[in-house]
Formats: sequence, structure tokens, C-alpha cells
Amino acid sequence: MLDFTHDTLAQRVVFASGKAAENLRSEVDRLGASAVMVIAGEADAAEAVCRGIDPALWHTDVAPHVPVDKAEKARAAARDHGVDLLVCIGGGSTTGLAKAVALTTGLPIVAVPTTYAGSEATNVWGMTEQARKTTGVDARVLPTTVVYDATLLTSLPVELTVASGLNALAHGIDSMWAPRTDPINQALAVEAIRALASGLPVVKDDPSGVAGHERCLYGAYLSAVAFASAGSGLHHKICHVLGGAYDLPHAQTHAVVLPHVLAFNAPAAPEAAARIGSALGSDLDSLRRTLDAPTALRDHGFRESDIDEAADLILPVVPPTNPRPVTRESLVRLLRDAWAGAEERR
Amino acid sequence: MLDFTHDTLAQRVVFASGKAAENLRSEVDRLGASAVMVIAGEADAAEAVCRGIDPALWHTDVAPHVPVDKAEKARAAARDHGVDLLVCIGGGSTTGLAKAVALTTGLPIVAVPTTYAGSEATNVWGMTEQARKTTGVDARVLPTTVVYDATLLTSLPVELTVASGLNALAHGIDSMWAPRTDPINQALAVEAIRALASGLPVVKDDPSGVAGHERCLYGAYLSAVAFASAGSGLHHKICHVLGGAYDLPHAQTHAVVLPHVLAFNAPAAPEAAARIGSALGSDLDSLRRTLDAPTALRDHGFRESDIDEAADLILPVVPPTNPRPVTRESLVRLLRDAWAGAEERR
Repeated sequence: MLDFTHDTLAQRVVFASGKAAENLRSEVDRLGASAVMVIAGEADAAEAVCRGIDPALWHTDVAPHVPVDKAEKARAAARDHGVDLLVCIGGGSTTGLAKAVALTTGLPIVAVPTTYAGSEATNVWGMTEQARKTTGVDARVLPTTVVYDATLLTSLPVELTVASGLNALAHGIDSMWAPRTDPINQALAVEAIRALASGLPVVKDDPSGVAGHERCLYGAYLSAVAFASAGSGLHHKICHVLGGAYDLPHAQTHAVVLPHVLAFNAPAAPEAAARIGSALGSDLDSLRRTLDAPTALRDHGFRESDIDEAADLILPVVPPTNPRPVTRESLVRLLRDAWAGAEERR
Repeated sequence: MLDFTHDTLAQRVVFASGKAAENLRSEVDRLGASAVMVIAGEADAAEAVCRGIDPALWHTDVAPHVPVDKAEKARAAARDHGVDLLVCIGGGSTTGLAKAVALTTGLPIVAVPTTYAGSEATNVWGMTEQARKTTGVDARVLPTTVVYDATLLTSLPVELTVASGLNALAHGIDSMWAPRTDPINQALAVEAIRALASGLPVVKDDPSGVAGHERCLYGAYLSAVAFASAGSGLHHKICHVLGGAYDLPHAQTHAVVLPHVLAFNAPAAPEAAARIGSALGSDLDSLRRTLDAPTALRDHGFRESDIDEAADLILPVVPPTNPRPVTRESLVRLLRDAWAGAEERR
């Protein structure tokens, strides 16, 4: 029986390698903007992308997790300059700052992503105050247009690319059993997994080439669309707790935890597992070996002595709809495997 | 190289068999409507669906192809009653009339489809005046919400269901090479083809059962989403001319012409053809045989003597981006095969 509610979010995607400047200019024209605020982590890359437009304001005061005081500063700057369009050029933190400004001002955003973070495709915002992260969902923060240009990713260090790509893959895989999973976001997730699994080895092989990045960027976009629609599944709940409580690096944590969640849920979600497997074209472990992906949380700051507490923190936030019931014991086993980097799992 | 612009349209889909009345009521509440105008071809089915709401106005003056005078009457009725929400319950003509009202009034639409027409998922409107059809694209005509309920389709005559399902399949297949085809609408089209190809034989076998209709309704929705995004390909250009110039029945024309266009384009679009084939799970001809699908245009009012003129009318509207160049000779051959119902094609 099919029984679901699916909200499709309106967004324009303009995808073309080497054409970010040209396509950004067309979008700024189309939207009739006269006072553009550019938000960018690194001004250098952003300047090249902005060569076709005439920004009223450059804002480069960007920090991870969008600290509230940075958001307030950016909002004030937008107000003071009568800004009518936000253009953000960068990764998740940069997009996140633009979203924080849009949240209170209602200003439209054109996003030009330079990583596989995927924030540009969601209506989710997040801000941090005194090490506490608040997140929310608001239609105003969804970028009106995303301008994708794979050439902007060719200078990323390869380990970062791989970790960021596996993070994107996690968006897709976790969507297959997340609380609001439905046939539509599953179809998008499967397409995303296929693109990422075929693109990532190409990127690993030739990190400065465009071909692999194109495929991965496309996959990362659809993964994020699926994720925004399906919500956080078990994988993201685990990673969210680990990241928050033990300050583990975001992309690496996702890269390590993902195969353990997949192995745990697969027996209880055979159809999802089969579709994931077929989209991967192999199993996740061989893909991870091809990519020299991070394998153990102990290499990234998580300690064996943290396992019990982490299980206690995760248990209450496990989605009740997870296909396989999650006990404290199974969480401890999963975390221990992820800590040790064990290949053998159940 | 990936190079595309994709506009995703915002829409809510509420999908559940047997729950149309309940879900319509929730949507009317959510949208805060106080004066609902119900547009329905047949009042009986509509009354059951509307049992949870209290419409301000019932409008059943619906006709095929949305004649302009019927549209004007419906608009006047909406104005006179201070309507703030349109609810349409029916097939393409009913949805079309609601769209005509929305086009000039900006009123939101909740659509409850009772066929596989798919109009509910597009921003395309159409109206007819003195046998001339005008169509256009406008954001205002896209229904805000679609409430799908497969039980509303179980009383359709099986031949009509099959023809309507093949019409939906044509939306999906033609999207694979239509002018604005891109990886995203292709992924949706492939999912749609898969659902329709697996659902239609079930419907044929058990037309009053819900299972097949659920799958087909889901497929028809995604086919229409893909089609709205990708635009009219060769198949729809041919059928549009045939329908307009020779007054052929819509769904049957699509059902007959589709395999001929697929056979024609396949050699020049091998990747699309392979994905279509794999999504069909067999070839289109065996699916059509299973369904006793209409096979020849000569059974539906098209005459051999019309072929030459039809080719002349179609040639100028062939999409320049069609994967295989279309000559007058190849059109004549295709039309002759479709007229005769030939299984052998090139």
C-alpha cells in the first residue's frame, strides 16, 4: 500500500562546468536584483565567479556552524546596504550564513556551492550559540537558484573530496529509511547513490578533472533533495550526536559510520538494501576501499571510553520508524565497530 | 558533459487509497479556505470525496478541451461567490477547467484526479475557441496539492484505463528525448515507466482491485512531472497534430503512436532506449500485447489518405533536438505503420 505525503520544493538548478560566472550573471539579471550581497568564505574563488556582476557588498566573515553573532552581523550589513539578493559562494558554512540572513530578512538566495555539502538544496537552517546548535525548517531559506559548476571543486584536496562525497552518499542512503521516506524521495536517492558511486572513484583517480566532479555534484544535489524530503534517519541521528558531544569532524564521521548503519538496517529493509546495492554497483566496503575512505572513529578523536555514553545519548533520538529496532546493546556494538574500524559487522 | 537548467515546481502530493475525503478535508483546513468551489464532471463521485467539506459552490459544467465560454462561466461563478479555493475532481478536462479559472483569478487548486491524465502535475493550461486550442505555461495553474486515491479509478472501464495508462507511459518515454530533457527529469521518467509497466498488467488483470491502480497512479504522476519539465518530444508533437487535424481520440492515438516513435528514436538514443527497456522490464510490444492495447490508427478514424498531409503538418513542428533527424519520408513511414498497425518497424 502506498500512503505518503510528499512536498516538492520549488528550486531552479543551473548546471554547467566552467560557466558559473555566466550563469550567475543570468540569474542575477533574471531576478532583477540591483543590490547583491556576496557571502563567501574565500574571496579569491568568489571574485572569479562574480566577474559578471557588480556586487553592492562583499561579506567574508564566515565561520563553521553559523555562530549567531556572525549571522547578526551579516543581517545588519544586508539591511544597511539595502541588499535585495544574497549570493553565497562556498561550502555548507557559507550557504548556512546566507540562510541565516534569509531567515529573518526574506531575501532570496542564489547559491554557488564549492563542496558536496548539499545545504543549497534544503530548506533547513542551523545556527550555533555557546556551542549549542539550533536547527529549523523554513521555506524562506531554500535558495531560489543553485548554480553548479564542477570546475569550482577541482582544487579541493582529494581526502576532503572523498569525505565530502561520502557525506553526500550518506544523505542518499539514509533517505531510504528515514522518517518521511516515500517512493519519490527514494527514487531520487537511488539516482543520487548511482551518480556518487560512479563519480567518486573517478574523482579519486583524477581529482583535478571535471568529469568525476560533475557526476558527484549532480549526485550530491539529488542526495540533499532526497534528504530534505525524507528527514534524518538513524545514520544522521548517530552522527549528529557524535559530532555535537565529541566534536568529531563532520564529513569523516559520516564516512565512517555509514557502512555500519547500512549493515545494521539491511536485513530489516531488504528492498531498500537491494536498491542501494544495485545503485552502488558494488558493496559499500569495496567502494570505500577504492576511495581510501576513513575507516575508524578512533582516528578522528572518538575514544573507546566514549562508547557507553554515546549509546545513551543516541538511544532516545533513534527514529521510531527505523526498519530495525535499535537496542542499547546493538548501538554499543555499532559504535564499537565504528570506533575500531571493524569490517565484520552484523 | 552535464549542462542543463532544471526548474522544480513546488507541489504537495497526498497519496492514500480510500482516503480522498479525509485528505481533501485536511488540505482545505490547512489552506484555510472558507469558500470552496468544487469543479467536477460527475457530481456523484465528487460528492463522496467532498463529504468532509462544505463547498460554497458546485460547478459541473465541464467539457473536453476547456471551451473558452465554459471557462468564462466558471470564472464568473467563482467571482460571484467569493471563492477562495478551487477543488477539482475528475480527469484532464475537469482539471483543465480549474486551471483556466486559476489562470485569471490566481486562486489555488486542490486536484483530486480520477484518471491517469497527469494534468494535475503540470503548470500547462489549455483552452479551445472555435476548434482552435491555445496552450500556455503559467505558475498560477499548477495545483497546490494533489490528493491521489486509487479507489477513485477502480470503476473506469478497463479499455479506457489501459489507453489512459499508455498515454501516461508516453509522457514518461517522450521525456527521455524531449527538448528540455535532463538527468533529473529522466530519473523521474524512468521511475514512472517502471511503475506504469508493472502496474498496468495488474490493472488489466484486476481492474477493480486497488493494487494496480496505486502503482499506475503513482507512475502517471511522475510521468507528468517529468513531461512538464522536459517538454513535448517527437511523440507528443505527432499526437498533437493528429488529434487536432483529424479529431482522433486522445489516449488511443498516444497508445498507437508510442511504439513507433520509440522504435524510430531508439537507434539514435541508445542510452535512453536501454533505460526505457530496463524500466519496462520487457519490450513495449509485449506489454502492449498483454494489455490488448489499441494497435492501429485506422481503427480510430485516421485514413490512409490522411498520411501525406499529416506528415506535412508534423514536419515543421518536429523538435530540432530530436535524437534522430526526422525526414518527410521517415514520417510518412512512421505514420503508415501507425495507421496499419504494423509490428515491423524501423
